[in-house]
Amino acid sequence: MANDKDLQVLFHETLKDIYFAEKKILSTLPKMAKAAQSEDLKAAFRKHETETEEHVARLEKVFEEIDEKPRGKTCDAIMGIIVEGQEIIKEFKGAPALDAGLLAAAQAVEHYEIARYGTLKTWAAELGLNQAVKLLEKTLSEEKKTDEALTQLAESEVDQHAQAA
Amino acid sequence: MANDKDLQVLFHETLKDIYFAEKKILSTLPKMAKAAQSEDLKAAFRKHETETEEHVARLEKVFEEIDEKPRGKTCDAIMGIIVEGQEIIKEFKGAPALDAGLLAAAQAVEHYEIARYGTLKTWAAELGLNQAVKLLEKTLSEEKKTDEALTQLAESEVDQHAQAA
Repeated sequence: MANDKDLQVLFHETLKDIYFAEKKILSTLPKMAKAAQSEDLKAAFRKHETETEEHVARLEKVFEEIDEKPRGKTCDAIMGIIVEGQEIIKEFKGAPALDAGLLAAAQAVEHYEIARYGTLKTWAAELGLNQAVKLLEKTLSEEKKTDEALTQLAESEVDQHAQAA
Repeated sequence: MANDKDLQVLFHETLKDIYFAEKKILSTLPKMAKAAQSEDLKAAFRKHETETEEHVARLEKVFEEIDEKPRGKTCDAIMGIIVEGQEIIKEFKGAPALDAGLLAAAQAVEHYEIARYGTLKTWAAELGLNQAVKLLEKTLSEEKKTDEALTQLAESEVDQHAQAA
């Protein structure tokens, strides 16, 4: 039997993947905020938690546009990325490099999302899902801004250490 | 006992993580090239394989600069990302959306690398590892270019489908 899975099927599968990932991220962010040492990093994680709630709601609207129920499917990629973050929390608890490690873990999460939203936006345009294109573009732009903010935090973190040394 | 793990320890740990990831990617790229339907995508994967060999060699020079043996440690993130790519190859074999799925998988890999090299470059600067900064910057710039090339392929893929429809 021919495999006729087309872009519509792939879009739906990938939507389930990122929906699972966003919900997983939502449950992980409070743990990252709790673990962080600096107030700036705690605040960044809390801000991103609020944004992530919005991202989940936007994905639900995209499911609606393709007449599907919002449902996730296990995303091995985000599970692996989050496991690495948990290892950092465990191994660097109370250590000078904890926040640097948390920042790196968070940027790996952001880049996974940037890849996925970029892909989904391209496919939504091809499928003529006009509302989805706008929603996915909005989230993509927020993820990029979060990544830039984390880069700035990482650089200022490094500067503070340099001054303290 | 106080946990005194500092940026130097974190840098070394993360170097082992990306070294493992690059080697895993190197063994995966021929499978992606074989699975791809379009000649352009096959060629893109082959080109990236050659570049990845170079990235591994550069990482070995960074290990040398910090007086450590090149050694990887299991990177759960890349394992998860690659599992998702393998699922695409299996589920979309012979299907119209196979190449689109492979492109998405490859872009998830690229973004993981972009996140890691960005982080390592910032830390190398802080640690005064001048040769490492240059080597990591070079690879980072190549990963970004690969990601852009994949985006262009994904968009032209979508255009061709639109014209064929």
